[in-house]
This record gives sequence, structure tokens and C-alpha cells, in this order.
Amino acid sequence: MKKIKIMKNVLQANDEIAQNAREYFSKNGVFVINVMSSPGSGKTTIIKRTVVELKKLNIRPALIEGDIETQLDAAQFTKFNIPIVSINTGPFGGDCHLEAGWVKQASDDMDLDKIDILFIENIGNLVCPAEFDTGAHINVVILSTPEGEDKPLKYPLMFTSSQVNIINKCDLTEILEIDLETMKKNALKINPKIKIIEMSAKTGDGFDKWINYLKKKLKK
Amino acid sequence: MKKIKIMKNVLQANDEIAQNAREYFSKNGVFVINVMSSPGSGKTTIIKRTVVELKKLNIRPALIEGDIETQLDAAQFTKFNIPIVSINTGPFGGDCHLEAGWVKQASDDMDLDKIDILFIENIGNLVCPAEFDTGAHINVVILSTPEGEDKPLKYPLMFTSSQVNIINKCDLTEILEIDLETMKKNALKINPKIKIIEMSAKTGDGFDKWINYLKKKLKK
Repeated sequence: MKKIKIMKNVLQANDEIAQNAREYFSKNGVFVINVMSSPGSGKTTIIKRTVVELKKLNIRPALIEGDIETQLDAAQFTKFNIPIVSINTGPFGGDCHLEAGWVKQASDDMDLDKIDILFIENIGNLVCPAEFDTGAHINVVILSTPEGEDKPLKYPLMFTSSQVNIINKCDLTEILEIDLETMKKNALKINPKIKIIEMSAKTGDGFDKWINYLKKKLKK
Repeated sequence: MKKIKIMKNVLQANDEIAQNAREYFSKNGVFVINVMSSPGSGKTTIIKRTVVELKKLNIRPALIEGDIETQLDAAQFTKFNIPIVSINTGPFGGDCHLEAGWVKQASDDMDLDKIDILFIENIGNLVCPAEFDTGAHINVVILSTPEGEDKPLKYPLMFTSSQVNIINKCDLTEILEIDLETMKKNALKINPKIKIIEMSAKTGDGFDKWINYLKKKLKK
């Protein structure tokens, strides 16, 4: 029981920092999106493609890149010439999620006047990141078709804490014999309000819907 | 800093319980295998097929099935008529890993005299389960080809704490344009001693190597 109590205190402290960070980002005109998924679901590929599309529309993106070890993901973004801060949680004990305090601290190294939209690429993990508010305005969970239809039922907190569910690698649906309708039904069963966007970050199919969603969010 | 200190105490307590559990299992002639991976890498499918193959050899398997929510995975095993205990971590705060105390407690509901090999299907998570010794004799990490070649580098603790790395869904290697050699090199870079077994749990390719490995381990 003691362990759970300690956990609650950590979560409570994080929630307060997150709320303050969110207000700070709003005041500075920066819309913040926390992107979560299992390892290999396509976070980096989707954010890369999103950055390219947003730049075409003169929307200025930035990125906070979370990884336990390595800067492999962050390195993929250098060619885009956007503000990037990399957080390696390794030195903090290999933490399995990002916390609001680290996100806020990372953003202190960025000139917010030059940013319209800030992506947070969370640690690849379908469990723990859902428990920690990062200070983002919306949470996006990516589920890729190879992971299977049942995952929303088995990892419900990730789906109740997200506003958007991107279903990625839809180009593999037939080969993998995945029932996309069941996958969507399961996500909606856990969170009836979640917005589902089907796409293939590889082929670009469905990407227009995601960009339109972001454009609408930025107008508000 | 305080948080990390607390974490160390929790880990230390778990390590002691795990060591005692491991000795208890050895004394009772039960070989225990902790199976870890991301959600959807194929843990359940591989264990199901393994159970079928072991029963053919008159080796008596049992299963402790970890899930945050649902008993969907455990339900798939009822037809095999083997001892199964399901642990849902939801009531413990949705924990993202299994701990040795819970494993030991679950095994108390089993008749160990009738078990040769006990599988622990850990929570689907490539991060946290690696930190918690379950009391198993060996740890197996499953990495499936759709997750990408770089994952051992990005989630190193999972690979240093495992003795076996099953690379699953090898039937998809060509379609996904995955470089299997790089994936294996990355696993060996993190842990030069790790035994790599390539397979497709769907087609059964490579499964004989896995069964042979288990047979050898049981003879010791």
C-alpha cells in the first residue's frame, strides 16, 4: 500500500506542474501535442512527415524528443531545421515516461515566439506515459495494425487519456489479416469521444485528415 | 533525487523476494521463464504454440498470465487444460510490470509437483518489466520485425537483462523491408551473450530451435 501512496504524491505534484506548463504554453501561443505509443508504432515517422507538411503551410513546428537512451530519433530531425530538445531519461534512472517538469525545462531552451506547434515524442511505452500529464493540450496515441485489435481493451488508460487515436500501418491490414473495424470498435468502447484517424505514414494515405485536424486545432 | 531513492528501495525489496522465489522454484523442480515484450509482439501466440509442443513431449507446462486489465489472454489457454493463474495489475494501480511477490503468490495456487516449466507472461511493455526480477530462471525478450531494427539500442535494459531474444514475425521481413542482420547486430551490441532465435509464431518457422533450447534447459 505504501508504494501506491508514494506514486499518488508523485502524480499529484506532476499534475500541478503540468497545469502551469499548459497555461504558460497557451499564453505564448504554442499548441502542444503529446504523442504516445509502443516502440515501433511510427511516432518518429509520423512526426517527421507532419513537420514537412506543416512547414509547407507556414506553420512553425518544434519538437521535444524523449528517449531512454540514444539520440537516434532526434538526429533524424536535424535536416528539417526546427527547434529540437532531446530528453534522455537514462540519467534519471531510465524512466519509462516523460514528466511535465522535464518538458517545461526543455521548452526553456526554445524561443517560443518562433513556434506555433510543439510536438512531444514520448518514450515508446503503451502503459506509463498515460499516467503522467506532460502539460500538452492534447494527447495522441498511435496504435499500429501489427499490434493487434485487442490493445485498447488491454491498455485502457492510454485510450481514455488520449483525444486522438491514430491507427498507423493501415497498408498492412490485409497482409496481417487485421480486422480494422474491431480495432476501432475497441478504441471507441474504451473512449467513445476519441477521434480515430486511419493512416499509413509510409504511403501517406490518410495523412490529409491528420493535417486538417491540426489546422483546425491551431485556429481555435 | 528523492524519487530515485524510493525506487531503489522498492527494487531492492523485490530482488530479495525474487531470489527466494527462484530458490523455491528450483527446489520444487520447476523451471521458470519470464516472457517480456511490447504489446502485440507475439507473447501469447508463442506461449500457446510452446504449450502444445511441450505437451507432445510429455513436458508439463503452466502459466502465470499478467495483464493490466482483462483476462483475454488467459482465456485463450483454458482449452489446453494446464494450470493458469491470471494476475491483473489494475487493482494495484495499473502497474506496468510484474513483481516477484505477486508471481510467488500466484504460484501458491498451483500444484508445483505437476509442473515442469512455468511461463510468466509479463505486462506488454519494453521498459519497466526489465527492472523487476520476477524470480524466473531465465528472461526472454520477444522483438517482432515490425518494431524496427533500432529497438535494442533504444531499450537496452530489456536486452541486457534477458538471456534469450526471440525475433518474431520473421515471415514479414521482406514486406516490411526490415534488415534482420542489423536487428540482430544491435541486440548483440547491447548484450553479446544473448541467444537469438528467429521465428514466425504464425507459420511455425524456427520454432524447433526454441523447443530444443527449452529441452536442453530442462535437462540441466
